[in-house]
Amino acid sequence: MVPRYSRPDMTAIWTPEARFRIWFEIEAHATEALADLGIVPKSAAKALWDWWATNPAIDVAAIDAIEAVTKHDVIAFLTWVAEQVGDEARFMHQGMTSSDVLDTCLSVQLVRASDILLADLDALLAAIKTRAYEHKMTPTIGRSHGIHAEPVTFGLKLAGAYAEFARCKARLVAARADIATCAVSGAVGTFANIDPAVEAHVAAKLGLTVEPASTQVIPRDRHAMYFATLGVIASSIERLAIEVRHLQRTEVLEAEEYFSPGQKGSSAMPHKRNPVLTENLTGLARMVRSAVVPALENVALWHERDISHSSVERYIAPDATITLDFALARLTGVIDKLLVYPARMQKNLDKMGGLVHSQRVLLALTQAGVSREDSYRLVQRNAMKVWESDGELSLLELLKADADVTAALSVAEIEDKFDLGYHLKHVDTIFSRVFGA
Amino acid sequence: MVPRYSRPDMTAIWTPEARFRIWFEIEAHATEALADLGIVPKSAAKALWDWWATNPAIDVAAIDAIEAVTKHDVIAFLTWVAEQVGDEARFMHQGMTSSDVLDTCLSVQLVRASDILLADLDALLAAIKTRAYEHKMTPTIGRSHGIHAEPVTFGLKLAGAYAEFARCKARLVAARADIATCAVSGAVGTFANIDPAVEAHVAAKLGLTVEPASTQVIPRDRHAMYFATLGVIASSIERLAIEVRHLQRTEVLEAEEYFSPGQKGSSAMPHKRNPVLTENLTGLARMVRSAVVPALENVALWHERDISHSSVERYIAPDATITLDFALARLTGVIDKLLVYPARMQKNLDKMGGLVHSQRVLLALTQAGVSREDSYRLVQRNAMKVWESDGELSLLELLKADADVTAALSVAEIEDKFDLGYHLKHVDTIFSRVFGA
Amino acid sequence: MVPRYSRPDMTAIWTPEARFRIWFEIEAHATEALADLGIVPKSAAKALWDWWATNPAIDVAAIDAIEAVTKHDVIAFLTWVAEQVGDEARFMHQGMTSSDVLDTCLSVQLVRASDILLADLDALLAAIKTRAYEHKMTPTIGRSHGIHAEPVTFGLKLAGAYAEFARCKARLVAARADIATCAVSGAVGTFANIDPAVEAHVAAKLGLTVEPASTQVIPRDRHAMYFATLGVIASSIERLAIEVRHLQRTEVLEAEEYFSPGQKGSSAMPHKRNPVLTENLTGLARMVRSAVVPALENVALWHERDISHSSVERYIAPDATITLDFALARLTGVIDKLLVYPARMQKNLDKMGGLVHSQRVLLALTQAGVSREDSYRLVQRNAMKVWESDGELSLLELLKADADVTAALSVAEIEDKFDLGYHLKHVDTIFSRVFGA
Amino acid sequence: MVPRYSRPDMTAIWTPEARFRIWFEIEAHATEALADLGIVPKSAAKALWDWWATNPAIDVAAIDAIEAVTKHDVIAFLTWVAEQVGDEARFMHQGMTSSDVLDTCLSVQLVRASDILLADLDALLAAIKTRAYEHKMTPTIGRSHGIHAEPVTFGLKLAGAYAEFARCKARLVAARADIATCAVSGAVGTFANIDPAVEAHVAAKLGLTVEPASTQVIPRDRHAMYFATLGVIASSIERLAIEVRHLQRTEVLEAEEYFSPGQKGSSAMPHKRNPVLTENLTGLARMVRSAVVPALENVALWHERDISHSSVERYIAPDATITLDFALARLTGVIDKLLVYPARMQKNLDKMGGLVHSQRVLLALTQAGVSREDSYRLVQRNAMKVWESDGELSLLELLKADADVTAALSVAEIEDKFDLGYHLKHVDTIFSRVFGA
Repeated sequence: MVPRYSRPDMTAIWTPEARFRIWFEIEAHATEALADLGIVPKSAAKALWDWWATNPAIDVAAIDAIEAVTKHDVIAFLTWVAEQVGDEARFMHQGMTSSDVLDTCLSVQLVRASDILLADLDALLAAIKTRAYEHKMTPTIGRSHGIHAEPVTFGLKLAGAYAEFARCKARLVAARADIATCAVSGAVGTFANIDPAVEAHVAAKLGLTVEPASTQVIPRDRHAMYFATLGVIASSIERLAIEVRHLQRTEVLEAEEYFSPGQKGSSAMPHKRNPVLTENLTGLARMVRSAVVPALENVALWHERDISHSSVERYIAPDATITLDFALARLTGVIDKLLVYPARMQKNLDKMGGLVHSQRVLLALTQAGVSREDSYRLVQRNAMKVWESDGELSLLELLKADADVTAALSVAEIEDKFDLGYHLKHVDTIFSRVFGA
Repeated sequence: MVPRYSRPDMTAIWTPEARFRIWFEIEAHATEALADLGIVPKSAAKALWDWWATNPAIDVAAIDAIEAVTKHDVIAFLTWVAEQVGDEARFMHQGMTSSDVLDTCLSVQLVRASDILLADLDALLAAIKTRAYEHKMTPTIGRSHGIHAEPVTFGLKLAGAYAEFARCKARLVAARADIATCAVSGAVGTFANIDPAVEAHVAAKLGLTVEPASTQVIPRDRHAMYFATLGVIASSIERLAIEVRHLQRTEVLEAEEYFSPGQKGSSAMPHKRNPVLTENLTGLARMVRSAVVPALENVALWHERDISHSSVERYIAPDATITLDFALARLTGVIDKLLVYPARMQKNLDKMGGLVHSQRVLLALTQAGVSREDSYRLVQRNAMKVWESDGELSLLELLKADADVTAALSVAEIEDKFDLGYHLKHVDTIFSRVFGA
Repeated sequence: MVPRYSRPDMTAIWTPEARFRIWFEIEAHATEALADLGIVPKSAAKALWDWWATNPAIDVAAIDAIEAVTKHDVIAFLTWVAEQVGDEARFMHQGMTSSDVLDTCLSVQLVRASDILLADLDALLAAIKTRAYEHKMTPTIGRSHGIHAEPVTFGLKLAGAYAEFARCKARLVAARADIATCAVSGAVGTFANIDPAVEAHVAAKLGLTVEPASTQVIPRDRHAMYFATLGVIASSIERLAIEVRHLQRTEVLEAEEYFSPGQKGSSAMPHKRNPVLTENLTGLARMVRSAVVPALENVALWHERDISHSSVERYIAPDATITLDFALARLTGVIDKLLVYPARMQKNLDKMGGLVHSQRVLLALTQAGVSREDSYRLVQRNAMKVWESDGELSLLELLKADADVTAALSVAEIEDKFDLGYHLKHVDTIFSRVFGA
Repeated sequence: MVPRYSRPDMTAIWTPEARFRIWFEIEAHATEALADLGIVPKSAAKALWDWWATNPAIDVAAIDAIEAVTKHDVIAFLTWVAEQVGDEARFMHQGMTSSDVLDTCLSVQLVRASDILLADLDALLAAIKTRAYEHKMTPTIGRSHGIHAEPVTFGLKLAGAYAEFARCKARLVAARADIATCAVSGAVGTFANIDPAVEAHVAAKLGLTVEPASTQVIPRDRHAMYFATLGVIASSIERLAIEVRHLQRTEVLEAEEYFSPGQKGSSAMPHKRNPVLTENLTGLARMVRSAVVPALENVALWHERDISHSSVERYIAPDATITLDFALARLTGVIDKLLVYPARMQKNLDKMGGLVHSQRVLLALTQAGVSREDSYRLVQRNAMKVWESDGELSLLELLKADADVTAALSVAEIEDKFDLGYHLKHVDTIFSRVFGA
């Protein structure tokens, strides 16, 4: 966890205190279920919840001190709780194994992390949608291979991003369900010492489903799928970040990360506004993705479990969720406040002197009866002049001045081929696909 | 693609001929839609389909020869088709861009690959289920950290695997839907030169959905999610493969990959039966996973598209699907024919002389009124003797011979604590969760 | 292996025939050493080499047919050789294990592959050096964050690339040494059945060192290091490829991948020259890198060996070397024939109207006694005019026309601050560091 | 950084205070060189060093407070230093760019980290060597595919590990050299505003070489190679860790992670000693490796630099070095104190009833004139009895009791084939290769 790439709500999920609070809830719910089954006294569960109702502070240092002696985190925690609650606490944890607590806790943490990430995605989607509608009909050049191709609108670029992050959200919903399971099944998952009803109760109370077949641990294919999904989302962040970085290049400058007017006046080199947020997002995307491979390697635990996954998760569970949360929020800010320059987009569109329309003219000449070869020759001889002028000459003007062309097409017909509306006539179609009717 | 790790049905999807066949279908369906819109003659579509009805062979060499001249694969293909079909073929591809064909074709190929993989998963699930029920109540030691823990059944191990691959199947169904989209939207995805109705028609005919916002290409987050999902499935394969490898170790030998009786007699070292299939699966899992990172790196194409993804997909699309198909089938064969040795499982269970039951005895002594400290001392002094005997002594026999123990517990009570049934009483619960009622 | 990304010399290393030839050499050299030790007759080695001297064709199909029966590739090969050579061949392979042949063969193949790759790097370095000197003093704008910063030369860009690929070469030399080892040590590496002198002889003949401690197999940390090194080289390829892609962007256009004059005339859209080679290299770099993780996962074989590495290497050894060879050659071609546009570089340099020089003016004003605040204000008010003009106005002209500025600095002094020579005075220093005196 | 997987010396390198100290040294050395060149007063450098000689505490909070205003870390630092040192400090940083400080600092940190890691490797090598010699002639079964193969010694296993980590050390020495470079070259690496002599001076003082061609930043192929090398070392750690985990399995139990006698008495289940340290190392290896891919992705910065690498390095530079340091030290402890059980090794060796010697008997029979077919039949019929007895019968005893065998071989000759010395005769050879004469 790198503090500068962290936000407090997500970070709070991964604190020792938050973990201990979840542990308590798991233990207390389990004790309650044990009491319902008549295995422990009802007073035991009541004592736990009564203490909890006092909203007690968790003394992490005290628990750590006990762990330093017992060398066992869950026992240290139980000991500390017993010190607070008193004798009734001895009924806690009966028939359970530490992993029942640890793994179910991780599920709760990942679910909470997912809920923050889903809210992040909603905020990002909202920001993208607002800007997409704002620039729904703002023409800009579409580029394939970095080279001018045909016109699109800036809104279309953002509509594509919206559709992509909407997919990311759906994937995260599925991944959240994948890790939202609860295991309270004992040493090797057989319920030898604990009734399955306890697991069902804990699961219901925590908003989880029961793990159908745990083996002391919840199977790690679930977590692998979860982190793989975060990796895909990170890659989509990278894509949009790189789009902004490209648009902000000195020679392109169709959009810029926000800078305040104060910032604007602060430099003798007013052009030196660097897309540092989106460059940063490019790096953060790499980091979120870096969790994917170790998560995949974590799946093949030996037999009923080994503990090799644990150290990996101590890193990647906080790091990947905290970093992704930060990245989504940063990207939302970038999009929300992005400075968009339609005039420059138009200037770039015009940069090629109208060459992007050459194919429509070619087709029109052919349809007007000029042979394919002649049509091609007519367009090409004018196109080359435009190209060699490095954008100084205009294809439209040259064609209108070319008698061989005007012999086949009227000026109005020629001008019609340079109509951006031709390219933008289905923007509505795409918007309604992406954003709904 | 490595031939020895390939099966013909999956490999067939990725041949040039298969690709050209799909290209034809896309083009012909598109021409049909164009004809319906009145943009091209109905006769054009008819000519294409009439020719197709003759079940023509695809002359890959001829198409390659044309491509060697035109340097463009789609044009080469169209030229060859035109040579076969005649003049009406000139209406093909109108308003389309090459990527409309290439990307939609890739979707079709990945859908077909997914269907084979789903069938593979069904076969694997069936094999696991059969063996799980066969060994539903076959006791075996559960191991955490590679160390004996408490009893489970061999059927429970397989039930866990079944649940895991059932999740894999659900994930693949979702991933299949993610890549089952069709783009026929022109140079930068604006439908400038082609009506969206054409895309809708092609999609419907090919069993795809329309891509809501393509940009010449179908966005690569879809493919990233797809290959990430294959990577998760591969990791689950690795997990089960490693379980088999462990079980086949000389010292464990609870199960073995199948060998025919003929093979059995073929060596002077009858113990040297190596789990080469599952070792191989371990390696193949690494290979399928190796597609994940490049697929994630493919997402961030520049602007409306660059072509950096293309070379990556030429490798990973065939390799990952072909290898995973092979691996799933190989694993199915391993499970289907796995030699399972219940007697050896029992022998291993007994190996610790009953130490796995020591905790139940400890609890029983406490419940019988012996102090916690004394109970512990009583159990421990016998347990240590068992342990030091390296499995020669039996904890049950020692306890029954320990007067301090029998003072608190009857022989019947002691024996009851060594009852495997205690551990296996919820096998039904788990089976019904995994396999349904 | 994807044929279109393969070159024949590298591909030839990985054919079955090449493999069998290396196997033969290993076996024949080993037999020779065994004969020197008096363990087998000298005539046995002679018979093998006599046959080899006839330059016999390797009948791969025949060997495969034998393998289909024996289920063992090395035995099949030995059987076939025995059929060719006759009775003396029975002394081959004595005391050896299959892995002695397979692993040593892989070493030979990787050494040969390395030699091709080293030659590729030499060719690339030569191409870069030539172009670097050609454009040693061609001014171009240096960019940080994609934004104009200060002037460099195009030669400096290439000098940096040269230094980077020179490092890559040194790394590959080290990686080659890492995998250039020979193991002929028997079933578990103890030389129980074969004298270490045989290994020493085979190693010497094949240009390898002896593996100090093999365990049936050569340890896979060597191969992991090898493929990791290829991954680093691939990333350097990606870096230079992305530089070219950026330079070819429509708005930048300072360089372009080569196109023949014929190609030039072939399109009505003369600007639509796509950097498809370097985009392709970007993708190929991802593929070469994808070998790194499985190679790292291959290291931890179980005990003296398991065979999980084998399937991985069947893919990555050919794929990574063939792809990298192709990529290096393609990049060499790109650099060798790169179209460089110094005039456009100058135009882009001038694009900001001289703003890149503003800091030098600021410093000069301060040094001329103007207060820091006033200096800043003077520069800024002119810089902002330039910036708002989108490159139409010139900072130099504005400053010369600003009386407050000329009160402190003479026109000559102002002009001096716009001298590119100031930025380029250490080009020689850097070139001599990179290319030597 | 996860505190429990961190050691203080390595962690100290990555604290803000350590970073600021290095920054100061870079700035002070540079100022010194500038003074030598006559560009700044000698008194400036003296003032800096005089202050430094007072061993001033670095007030990180104060610097952070300044950064909160200036939004620039290096300026904040310089401002704070100026507050401490006084007016002479204004000559610091002249002609330099922030990256000169940041990148050179990272080099210093990675060099220091490398030195700790090299010492870690030395300690690990020493521990392995001691144990290797201790068990140089301790026989144990060699296993391929997890199946008993032929005898080795436990010392040989460790000798192989020694050779592997010796390679790792050599690789790290090379990787350390790769990142030990210094850049003080200004905004785009041209030395426009600073003389190369300054860089040379700073480099010499800090024990670095000069970066031949920096571009504001030190090229990231160096760092990629560095982290790739750490990934290889991590994989070698994983290999040895997995060996220990295998040896500690209940059924194998040839070695165990150390537990104190006190721990021994603490459980009623004395067999439940889990190899948690080596399982943990398996996970930590995955984490160190997870730095490799983002480090490779960091290489292709845009043009003279973008800042996408920076966030990645904030994570992986501390995490990978701290985790690897911890892992090497933990592994050293594991090996140093490993409980090795020669008796159990012998028992496992004997487990197959001598089947591992069957091939030597087969060969002896053949050499004694028995036909190959008969020899095979004789060995096999006895071997199968041993195998079916699950280790109860002894091949040696059966052979000695088989009249057809004793007709060809004397009892002494038969017993000779069961001599472990045959397998161990070249242990010296291997040891002298690995450890030197």
